[in-house]
Amino acid sequence: MTLDHGDPGDAPSIPMPTAPVVNPARPSAAEEARTVAAATNIATLASLSADGSPWASFVTYGLLDGQPVLCVSRMAEHGRNLAADARASVAVVAPDPPADPLAGTRITLAGVVERPVGDEAVAAREAHLAAVPAAEHYIDYSDFSLWVLRVHRIRWVGGYGRMDSASAEQYASAAPDPIVPVAARAIDHLNDDHADALLSMARVLGGYPDATEAACERADRYGLDLRVRTPRGVARTRVGYAEPIDGIDQLRAATVELARRSRES
Amino acid sequence: MTLDHGDPGDAPSIPMPTAPVVNPARPSAAEEARTVAAATNIATLASLSADGSPWASFVTYGLLDGQPVLCVSRMAEHGRNLAADARASVAVVAPDPPADPLAGTRITLAGVVERPVGDEAVAAREAHLAAVPAAEHYIDYSDFSLWVLRVHRIRWVGGYGRMDSASAEQYASAAPDPIVPVAARAIDHLNDDHADALLSMARVLGGYPDATEAACERADRYGLDLRVRTPRGVARTRVGYAEPIDGIDQLRAATVELARRSRES
Repeated sequence: MTLDHGDPGDAPSIPMPTAPVVNPARPSAAEEARTVAAATNIATLASLSADGSPWASFVTYGLLDGQPVLCVSRMAEHGRNLAADARASVAVVAPDPPADPLAGTRITLAGVVERPVGDEAVAAREAHLAAVPAAEHYIDYSDFSLWVLRVHRIRWVGGYGRMDSASAEQYASAAPDPIVPVAARAIDHLNDDHADALLSMARVLGGYPDATEAACERADRYGLDLRVRTPRGVARTRVGYAEPIDGIDQLRAATVELARRSRES
Repeated sequence: MTLDHGDPGDAPSIPMPTAPVVNPARPSAAEEARTVAAATNIATLASLSADGSPWASFVTYGLLDGQPVLCVSRMAEHGRNLAADARASVAVVAPDPPADPLAGTRITLAGVVERPVGDEAVAAREAHLAAVPAAEHYIDYSDFSLWVLRVHRIRWVGGYGRMDSASAEQYASAAPDPIVPVAARAIDHLNDDHADALLSMARVLGGYPDATEAACERADRYGLDLRVRTPRGVARTRVGYAEPIDGIDQLRAATVELARRSRES
């Protein structure tokens, strides 16, 4: 997706790659959204008050196949709102946001809430309790109800200029990334001990032959996000692994292979 | 405010005070809401999509006399939403939430947004930039607009069973608490070095003569929140200063006076 801001003329310019980005593979918007949803248990709900105006409120949630499971009280405005009009959306912010808040990752999931019944009611209760252990103290109060958000629209924003929508089908069939939530130590290791390899990757695979410095900002199942310094300015690029990986134990081999290809080329 | 949950019978019970709480003075809901609003620069906006359904989205904000000043792009759904229907609300979560998310403090501010004009446009721009320095990179893009939320309804939740509403007038005339955001070190000092004094306060001023332990959880301009252990269970109580204070430099004298009164009685 390309943004076309009305540039007042003094915006910082980002240097473009001067060589092909060999493998820009990255998670889809649906995968990114599933990853954010799975990363925390707090969200903000937007519901409709009696007069149709929007009401933003803090909520906790669990996940049932990617669908947020809320537990709210009828004594609270948002609980009355959902009971009267099922249209709802939740915004979730990825944990550990950067200092510049809009550089961080967040999603909106929008649709309609339903009271789960039968087997789904049991599964929804378990899903909520698994994510929000303190709910054991109120989940069975008669004024609290479980609601499952049937997700119809998905918007993911991964920071400045990185954003996309996903369909309900794409979201339902996607999985959270298995690497993102557990990669912090591996990323530190890459940056602390393998800065030369990252620089070669940026030059040979990442499209920035004039890079003078490269740091890994994220690892996911498809590859690495690199922050690249060049004489033309600072940019971000992507080096995709030869194959997607399924677990953190495969990250070392995948990055060693990237380093090897960066030396050979 | 008293909650009347439909108790399933196994809820944890909280021991009541067995003596008068001498001075339970605490900030009003309006003051609490102003304090939360002033404590951060990130919120979730609830706006109305074209079909009238609610849309939750992450935003940054500054404050103009307690009114959130948003800076959003028409290229984003929430920007289009505000331009088409001015009804909006924001939810703000107090920073550093506790491990149990619903024990934390959060607010909802609801009303209508307006594009500021004239002097207010200048002040709104300054207010947003003061709170969100990174906005200098996009605030003047032609697709971005400033919006001031005229706050009509205010809901504050201070954790389990602590919640209240405030009117627009109460909110507009309240001020953020000058002590809450800067009291962390003083609270640590009270808990580390003056546990005996806190226990006396809980026994003599806080209504819990059977307290065996007391810790300070918060200091604000009116007094201290104490967490009290008794043979009957754990409770929270309040010890109000002789007079409200206006700055952190007055906290020591106020707590010394509380300690003195706890000994004398």
